[in-house]
Order: sequence, then C-alpha cells, then structure tokens
Amino acid sequence: MAMVCLSDFEAYAKKYLPKIAWDFFAAGADDCCTRDENVLAYKRIHFRPRMLRDVSMMDIRTKLLGTEISFPVGIAPTGFHQLAWPDGEKSTARAAQAMNTCYIASTYSTCTLEEISAAAPGGLRWFQLYIHRNRAVSQQLVQRAEALGFQGLVLTADLPYTGKRRDDVRNGFRLPPHMKLKNLEGAFEVCKMSPSFHDCSEYGLPPNSIDPSVTWNDIYWLRSLTHLPIIIKGILTKEDAELAVRHGVQGIIVSNHGGRQLDGGPATIDALVEVVEAVQGSVEVYLDGGIRKGSDVLKALALGAKCVFIGRPALWGLAYKGEEGLQDVLRILQDEFRLSMALAG
Amino acid sequence: MAMVCLSDFEAYAKKYLPKIAWDFFAAGADDCCTRDENVLAYKRIHFRPRMLRDVSMMDIRTKLLGTEISFPVGIAPTGFHQLAWPDGEKSTARAAQAMNTCYIASTYSTCTLEEISAAAPGGLRWFQLYIHRNRAVSQQLVQRAEALGFQGLVLTADLPYTGKRRDDVRNGFRLPPHMKLKNLEGAFEVCKMSPSFHDCSEYGLPPNSIDPSVTWNDIYWLRSLTHLPIIIKGILTKEDAELAVRHGVQGIIVSNHGGRQLDGGPATIDALVEVVEAVQGSVEVYLDGGIRKGSDVLKALALGAKCVFIGRPALWGLAYKGEEGLQDVLRILQDEFRLSMALAG
Amino acid sequence: MAMVCLSDFEAYAKKYLPKIAWDFFAAGADDCCTRDENVLAYKRIHFRPRMLRDVSMMDIRTKLLGTEISFPVGIAPTGFHQLAWPDGEKSTARAAQAMNTCYIASTYSTCTLEEISAAAPGGLRWFQLYIHRNRAVSQQLVQRAEALGFQGLVLTADLPYTGKRRDDVRNGFRLPPHMKLKNLEGAFEVCKMSPSFHDCSEYGLPPNSIDPSVTWNDIYWLRSLTHLPIIIKGILTKEDAELAVRHGVQGIIVSNHGGRQLDGGPATIDALVEVVEAVQGSVEVYLDGGIRKGSDVLKALALGAKCVFIGRPALWGLAYKGEEGLQDVLRILQDEFRLSMALAG
Amino acid sequence: MAMVCLSDFEAYAKKYLPKIAWDFFAAGADDCCTRDENVLAYKRIHFRPRMLRDVSMMDIRTKLLGTEISFPVGIAPTGFHQLAWPDGEKSTARAAQAMNTCYIASTYSTCTLEEISAAAPGGLRWFQLYIHRNRAVSQQLVQRAEALGFQGLVLTADLPYTGKRRDDVRNGFRLPPHMKLKNLEGAFEVCKMSPSFHDCSEYGLPPNSIDPSVTWNDIYWLRSLTHLPIIIKGILTKEDAELAVRHGVQGIIVSNHGGRQLDGGPATIDALVEVVEAVQGSVEVYLDGGIRKGSDVLKALALGAKCVFIGRPALWGLAYKGEEGLQDVLRILQDEFRLSMALAG
Repeated sequence: MAMVCLSDFEAYAKKYLPKIAWDFFAAGADDCCTRDENVLAYKRIHFRPRMLRDVSMMDIRTKLLGTEISFPVGIAPTGFHQLAWPDGEKSTARAAQAMNTCYIASTYSTCTLEEISAAAPGGLRWFQLYIHRNRAVSQQLVQRAEALGFQGLVLTADLPYTGKRRDDVRNGFRLPPHMKLKNLEGAFEVCKMSPSFHDCSEYGLPPNSIDPSVTWNDIYWLRSLTHLPIIIKGILTKEDAELAVRHGVQGIIVSNHGGRQLDGGPATIDALVEVVEAVQGSVEVYLDGGIRKGSDVLKALALGAKCVFIGRPALWGLAYKGEEGLQDVLRILQDEFRLSMALAG
Repeated sequence: MAMVCLSDFEAYAKKYLPKIAWDFFAAGADDCCTRDENVLAYKRIHFRPRMLRDVSMMDIRTKLLGTEISFPVGIAPTGFHQLAWPDGEKSTARAAQAMNTCYIASTYSTCTLEEISAAAPGGLRWFQLYIHRNRAVSQQLVQRAEALGFQGLVLTADLPYTGKRRDDVRNGFRLPPHMKLKNLEGAFEVCKMSPSFHDCSEYGLPPNSIDPSVTWNDIYWLRSLTHLPIIIKGILTKEDAELAVRHGVQGIIVSNHGGRQLDGGPATIDALVEVVEAVQGSVEVYLDGGIRKGSDVLKALALGAKCVFIGRPALWGLAYKGEEGLQDVLRILQDEFRLSMALAG
Repeated sequence: MAMVCLSDFEAYAKKYLPKIAWDFFAAGADDCCTRDENVLAYKRIHFRPRMLRDVSMMDIRTKLLGTEISFPVGIAPTGFHQLAWPDGEKSTARAAQAMNTCYIASTYSTCTLEEISAAAPGGLRWFQLYIHRNRAVSQQLVQRAEALGFQGLVLTADLPYTGKRRDDVRNGFRLPPHMKLKNLEGAFEVCKMSPSFHDCSEYGLPPNSIDPSVTWNDIYWLRSLTHLPIIIKGILTKEDAELAVRHGVQGIIVSNHGGRQLDGGPATIDALVEVVEAVQGSVEVYLDGGIRKGSDVLKALALGAKCVFIGRPALWGLAYKGEEGLQDVLRILQDEFRLSMALAG
Repeated sequence: MAMVCLSDFEAYAKKYLPKIAWDFFAAGADDCCTRDENVLAYKRIHFRPRMLRDVSMMDIRTKLLGTEISFPVGIAPTGFHQLAWPDGEKSTARAAQAMNTCYIASTYSTCTLEEISAAAPGGLRWFQLYIHRNRAVSQQLVQRAEALGFQGLVLTADLPYTGKRRDDVRNGFRLPPHMKLKNLEGAFEVCKMSPSFHDCSEYGLPPNSIDPSVTWNDIYWLRSLTHLPIIIKGILTKEDAELAVRHGVQGIIVSNHGGRQLDGGPATIDALVEVVEAVQGSVEVYLDGGIRKGSDVLKALALGAKCVFIGRPALWGLAYKGEEGLQDVLRILQDEFRLSMALAG
C-alpha cells in the first residue's frame, strides 16, 4: 500500500485500528456536521495562482512566538495516543522533534509530561491545559510543564463539558485497563469508564472534574502561575478574539475541537478570517481543523494564520508506524505545502 | 439497541411500527420537499459560539403564557396516538406531565379529552382545534376543553382541506376498526375510510367536515366562546403574523404542519425570523417542525422562538415504549439542549 | 398500481412503452441539463402561504385569448402520439375536449388535422407550425387548420435545426413503418429514417426541410395568411419578448422545447419572470416545461403565466390508457392545483 | 458502440487504454477538484438564447493570430501521444491538418518536431515550450521549431515544478522503454523513471530539469531567440494578464494545466472573464480546459475567448482510432458547435 497522501493514512487507520479507537478518534459531536465542514470548507476557497515568479528558492520556515520551526504545521493536542501506537505520546514527541516542529501535548496524555520531555528533549513543546474544579491539579500541571521546558501553555476554552459523540456513547468507550491518564494519576481517583454517557463524560476522569465556571478572568490566574506565553484554543468569533487580546494572551488557536464539541458552529477556516481581522496582528493566530493536504495549509496562511496544527492526521500517522508514520505524514504535508507555494506563485 | 439520539427512535419506529402507521406519521405532502426542508434548514444555520463564560449554572426553564415548563420543548398536536402505542394520548399526556412540559392535545385524538385530563391532571395541556362546518361541534369541544382544565386553545389555520400525502392514498389509509376519533364520536357519523383520496380526505370524518371558509373574523367568534388564550398555528409570513396580532391572539406557532399540507412553502426555521420581527414581542412565538437534536432547539430560541414543539419525534418515542419512550426522547433533547447552551456560551 | 401522481404515470410509461418510444419522448439535448433543470427549478421557488382566507369557493377557470377553459393546464404540442397509443392524436384531442381545455396539435402528428378535428369537434384546438423551406407546405397547413376550426396558430421559434438528442442517435430512431407524418404526406417524399444524426435530423422529413432562415419578418407573412391569433413558442428572454410584442403576436409560450433543443439555456420557470415583465400585460404569456404537480402550476401562475402546457406528462397519460389515461393526468393536476390554491390562500 | 458524443470516446479510452496510460491522461493534482471543476463550471453558465434570427448560413471559421482555421477548436499541448496510439503525435498532426485547425505540439512529444512537421506539412502548428535550467536546450528547441515552420511559440507558465498526481505516484508511472521524449534526446541523459514522486517528477527527464526561477523577464529572452509570436499558457488572473500584455506576448491561453498542477485554483471558464477584461482586446485570449461539447465552446466564445483548445478529448480520440478517431472528435465538436450557434441565435 503506497502512502501517497493523508487519505491513505486515514484508510490504513480505519482498517487496522481497533474499532473503538478508530471511532474515538474519528468521532464528531451529534451529526458530525462541523467535523465534516472543517474539511469541506477548504474546497470552497480558491487560490488566485500567479505565474512566472522565481520559485527556485523557497523558505517555508516560520516562527512560533519567536521559535523557529521547519514549516508551518504543528501537532494539535489530542488525547490517548497509546490507543494509536504502544509508545503513545513519546512517539509523537520524537516525530515532531525530528521534523523540527511544535508538539502540543495534551493533558489527557497516556504518557507523563516527564516521559514526553525525555523522549524529545530538544523539541519545541507546548502544554495543553484544561482547568479542573480542583485548581491545585491544574496549577501543579502548569508548573510541572514549565519546569520540564515546555515553552507555551495552551488553554482549551471550548470544553466546559464534553461534547456528545454518539459513537463513543454507543461503544461505551473507555480506555483499556493498561492505559492511564498518567498526568492526572493520583490527582483524582480515576473513574471506571461506564457505558453511559451521563456517568462519565470526561473519558476517564471523575464526572464533572473540569470546571465549567471558567471565565476570562481565569486567564489572570494562569498568568500568575507561570511565565510561559499563554495561547487560547477554541476561539471562533471576533468578539472572543478581542477579549483574548484584551486579557493578554500571546496566541489564539482558531479551533472547534475537531467538531467534537458543539455541532453547528463554523468551519475553522471560515472563522479564521474574522479572528485575524479582529486581532490586527497584535497576537499570533493559528488554525486547527480539517487540514488534509499541503494546499490547505497554504490557504490557511493566505488567510492570516501563522501556522496550522493537525489533529486526526497525526493520529493516523501514529497508527501507521508510530514515530516513523507521523514523520511520513508531516513530510508529505511539507512536500505538498512547498509545491503548492511554488505553483501558487 | 442503544437509544442515544432521536434518530435511533426514528429507526426503531420505522422498523417496528406497522407500515401503514409509519407511513402515516412520516408522510409529507406531494414530494415531501417541505417536510425534508424543515430538517435540512437547520444545517444551514451556524452558531457563533462564545467561550469562557461561566456555564456552571444553567437555567433552561421557560414560561408559556405565564406557566413555567422545565425546558423549552413541548409536544405538538398530532393525531391517532394509538397507532403508535396502545394507551395512545394518555401516555403522551403522562410523559409530558412527568417532564413538566406542555402537551397540545389534537382534536383527532384516539382518547377523549376527559381521558387525557384524567391521565395527567397536573400537566400543562393545550387543546388543538379545527373549525368544523358544524360550528356546534367546535364550540362544544372548546368548552369541554376549558372545563377540563386545558389552558390554551390552539387553532390550526393551515388545513382548510387536507394535504395530499401520496403514501396515505396508496395505502388506502384508515384507522383500524378498534380505534376511534373519540372526541368527535356522535358529532358526526364517522366515515368508513375508503381507499380513495377524494372520498374521505379528513381521515375518519365525513368528507368536507372541516370548514374551508374560516377567516380571521372567526377568531372573534372563538374569543366569544372561551376565556382561554388563543394560539394560532400554521403562520409562515409576516403579513399573517401581523393579522394574528391585530386579531388579538396570544401566541403564534410557526408551522407548516410538518410539511403535510402545502408542499413548497418555507422551512419553519426559515419563516421564524420574519414572524418574530413582525410581532415585535407583542405575542409569544413558538416553532413546530424539523427539531431533531438539542442544538436545533437552541437555534430556534436564538432566532426568537419562546419554545419549540415536537411532532414526529414524540411519536417515535411513543412507538418505542409509550410514556417511558417519550420521556426518553424528551430527556435526550433536554440533555442535548443544556449541553448546546453550555458549549455555545 | 395506484396512479396517485404524475410520477406514477411516468414510471408506467417507462416500464411499458417500447424503449425506442420512451427514449424518444424522454430525450433531452446533449447532457439533458436543461430538460432536468426545467423540473428542478420549481423546487427553488417557495410559496409564501397565507392563512385564514375563505377558500370554500374556488374558481380555477381561465380564458385563453378569450376562450374559457376549465383550468389553466393545456396540452403542449408534441409529435408522434401513435408511439404512445394506437389512436394517437385523436385520443389526445378527445381527452382535452372532455376536460374542457386547450390542445395544441403538432405539425408532426400521426393523425391528420381533419381526424383530430373530427375526434373532438367542440374542443379548443390550436395548431402548431414549423415553417418549411417550401413555404407552400406551411401556407397550406395554416389554411387547413383555420378551415377546420383551429382557433390559434402556434409558431415554434426554437427549431431552426433539430437539437442533438443522443439517445435518438444511438437508437437510430425512426417511426415504425405503419406510422406517418400524416399532415405532411404528399408534401414531401417522406424520408427513410436512417441511424445517422446527420442524414435525417427532422425525424421523418427530408433533411433540412425546415427553414432556418426564418426571422421576425415572417410573422408578417403568417399574418397575411390567416385571421387566427398567432402565438409564438420558444421565447426565453425579455429582448425576444419585446420583439414578439412589436411584431404583433397575440401570445407567447415561454418554452425551451422540453430541453430538447439547446442544452444550457434557462429553465422555463426561471425565464418566465423576465418575459412577463417585458410584455407588461400587452399579450398573454404561457409556460411550457417541467410541470409535475399542481403546485408547479400555481407557481407559474403566481409568476405571471396565464396558463401552462404539459408535454411529457400528457404522453405518459396516453401511454397509460389513451384518452382515459390523459384525462386521469389532467384530473390529478386539476385536483392538485385546486388544493394548492386553497392551501396557499 | 456508437460514438455520438465526447463521453463515448472517454468511455472507450477508459476501457481500452492500458490502466497506466488512462490514469496518466486522466490524472489531476491532489484531490482532482480543479480538474473536475473545469468541466462542472460550464453547467453553471446559462445561455440567453435568441430566436428567429436567420441561421441558414453560419460562418464558424476564425483566425488565430491572422491564420484562418475552420472552427474555433484547436489541440492543446499534451505529452506522450504514443501512449494513446502507436503513431503518436504524427497522427495528431495529421488529424489537425485534415480538419484545418491548430495543433500545439508539446515539448514532451514522443515524436520529433521533424516527424510532426513532415506528417502534416501544411497544418497550422504551434510549439509548446518549457524553459529548462539548461537554456541551450530550450533555445535549440525554439529555433528548431521556427525552422520547421511552426508558427507560434507557446510558453507554459504553470509548471515550475510538476504537480502531484497521486495515481501517477501510485502507479510508479514511467514511459514504456520503447517510447522516448524524442525532442530531448541527447539533451539530457534521460532519467530512468522510478516509482518515487520525489525522484523524478518530470516524467522522463532528470529531476529538476525545468527551471523554476523563470520570471516575466525571460519573455524578453525568448523574444530575442525567435520571430515567432509568443503565446503564454497558464494565466488565471487579471494581474498576470496585464503583465503578459506589458511584456509583449501576442496571446494568452487561460489554463490550469487540466487541473494537473495546483489543485484549488479556479475553473478556466470562470477565470476567462477577468483575463478578457484585463487585456481589453490588446492580445488574443484562448481557453484550455473542460470542453466536453459544442455548447461549451460557444460559452467560451461568448465570454471572450477567440478559440478553445482541447486536451483530454483529443487523447480519447487518438485512443479510439488514431488520426481518424481524433478527426471524429473534432467533427463532433464542430457539428455541435455549429448547432449550438444556430439554436442560441
């Protein structure tokens, strides 16, 4: 099976992952409209390709908050990488380091932050945070991450409660017994995953462990805990983009959580424009969602994103061959992105 | 079979109801364009989700003409509930009472108003009326309903004649012999349902029993019969919304009769906006049609509806397990609606 | 098989007509885009239904150039009715007379004008004309029609050459030997239909018998031949509508020849509006194309048509049961049209 | 199998060509969105057909830079015609000459320019050029073409690198050993085609033989090499159209390389309008891409193209019967184009 484009990795993962893992990674909320729109929306955006420009030299490097990466595609925070590959997030970290790009490690990792750091000590790593009702848990995570050399703190803003992913409910999804939310061990008595949606909506944490009362003022609280730059993830409107700037974040990731939270919001590439306009260059804007080929990356950059992050495609790469498979995915995107730049002039 | 979302109940009903009953409940007029548009139109409406608002406490209660219900979803008037469940409308009334919401009982019930009242004496019930050529019949129904504690009178305005539902004609649809339009027993010699569309278009009533000459002035006549608030159902344009206000109704249900009457009108969610604008808050506006998940409810409320009413989904719930099944449907909508509210900020 | 709507007749005809006849009647030019658009365009037009109007009495009669018909649906000129039913155009004429509506007999009939007149002496009949290179043929036809009591002359303007209907070419379509273009017998040596598109594009006439040099001035020539009102068929633009008025026609049929001529023009219901606006009531405007149910008729009337004409549905009716089948089709349209009027207020 | 329209030739080629050849000719870049849009975009463009114009005489001849051709359809430059038919480009040249139209021979021909000239000495031929890093190669080609009587030089501007055509990568596409890029023999050591996309993206040439640093100034260099008119191929925006005029080209071919280069640009028929407007008649504008029937040609002309060029349809014709098959394709387009003109008035 030739792995020529990202769809090939998707097909492989669908075929070879356990159904429950595939379903979990693929799941969107409700009818999956937003998940699918994330991808379809790119097809409605057309380039205006320019010709006869000298494209013999192309510099595809960029900087994230001052740190150079090899090309503008990073790894979005997704959970439970051991479901895709035994080494889990360690493989992810190694692949990102090898490709010299940014990896945003999820709170819901199946490896510890320490293992992730040790696996790829020289890589650019950010840490993604949920704010728990038990604030001490969150504070401790932030400070561990900073101490371990993570260089950015990504606050997920769109998950006050977990979205309704029908297949997960049908499957009674739960982590296999040998996998743990290692970063949270000890912090909570880890919940026995039950088949009911209502009992355990946070996938391995006690019900309602995440704090739904978080507001913009909690940015100040985070600020007081760490010197790391704060990036807010999950913004879809100009109003929230302005609030983010006003509350002093350093970056915004336009995201709808891969269509796994609210079904019926905009595709991220469609929301990008108003966010970019609202911030007027005062903070960096990134995009998460729906990237399936290099020209999608170029479209996002043309509309003002500094960089994109890939979620599911990274998991497909892991599912194919762990670190090596993820590098394949990144390399394909890199080649395709460079080619698109050349062909679009 | 896990009942996770309303589509699961639909699939169940399609599988287990007698074909003639399923067809009758599912039927739309002509090519069913409007029936299908009612559902599809929601997908074209996108939220602008807002983040980092405190959604730890959410109050989803609302009031219908001053009476509180637990969340903004009621039961639309549909006929012949015994086709879905032996206890018929008694089950419907009990489920609505249990969930503390409003049930609009249809003139074409297979239980009497008395049975419905007795089944759920404490529930909020409205009564839906067709005006018959024989006005005495209608007058008697209104006064019976008022006496029995129904708290609102819903006048259906979009059925001067019955729409052409092809499958019903093909099936020669008729009520099974042991079911009766109990509220009308004695009022008419109940017609033997024949397979011809032309002979018996009112499904169990003598042909042409409904009065097609009803006009806005008949609102005054209704007003003279009862102290109940009058809600008009079937309005789709601003012109008619203004007329409704001018004729002194207390509420408007934007509805196209589930796409069972005129094929080719607007989806109800699309018509809602102009009706809401036209009445400028002077009367309450509700919506009927196409609701399939909690976020649809939120969209209707965001566009100005005070509450929505569900027709077919209620029947699917009944078909699944009677009162209990309908409660399941309502509870799923309630959970999904609450979650959507939280996720949309 | 219950014949409930026009699609049932279509399905019947597709199943029971000889393939070559079905293909001939169904054929559109090239990719059949325009043929299909004619039908689809109605679905994009939405009513604004009005409620509580007295619809107990509805008058659906109308007048065509002063002559009353029972409802605004006539029979468009189509050829070769013997392919659908042995009695051919005689059956068509009888059905139209029985339903008291207008039948436009085609030049390419398989019965003579005399037979058609004799079959339905009291019916409203118009005669459809192509102008042949041999003008004497056309002149003779016009004068025969007038003498026989046809009350209107319909000039087809959109067939200077025959459109390319791929299936007819593939089938090597030709009339069976026992059918004749009876109105033209003797006028030309009737061509042996060959399988090549190029040899015999006029389906039974010598190649190039129709005059492609006809211009607006030929309306004056027609005018000099007859006292009959002249209706021009095939107009799709306001420019041509204005020219038609200026050249003194009495009526315009907006038509694209059922999508059998130029593939890529507008649907007739879409072209209707600009034609109606252009003529400002100075002549009657009719519509031909895509009618499949009574509400389509109502849409055409709401957009300014005085009457519609049906082509393929009439043939399906003939194919079902000749005169009786066509009456069924007309009666269904009549019932549906009356119901739509009532439901749209 | 009756060959009635171009789709018949496509179906034939798909059935009878070796898969690797069919895939190569059919391939579009990435998801093939642009390739497919090229065709679909025509369906969104509607004629405004005019009636009763004298269409008995129609002159469909046109002139390309002063040279008359029999109708406005030429042969676009495509490579490797021996994959479609043993005689390769010689057949193509003969068919174009026989139909008295223009053939643009590709640099990537499997016959030499000398063979092509000899095959059709009297035909209008243009020569298509890529500029190689080794400029001497390009210079020699231009001067050979001029000496051989080619009358125009077509510079392809949209291939600084080869697009990513997934099927070619999957198939490990390479020319069969007995076929050669004959015009370039000796110029490069011809590369052994390997299955890897990265190794040999120019299909038979050494990697990176094409110069990606070409800019508008290289038009002046070309100008210095030849007296031939220069036509630039691959323009899609008004900005580039203006640059082309300013740099002194004689013609512009609006093209996206059949959707084989950048996936995500506009359909060529959609880009045509802005290019035509930008040049204001100062140079001739042609169109390449998506033509499937005669009315597509007419649409392109109505939007300002002087002539269209066909790529894949020409290959289908070759695959059917070589020179004869291509003549069939051209004759069908000619007949359909003439008929469309007549029917559109």
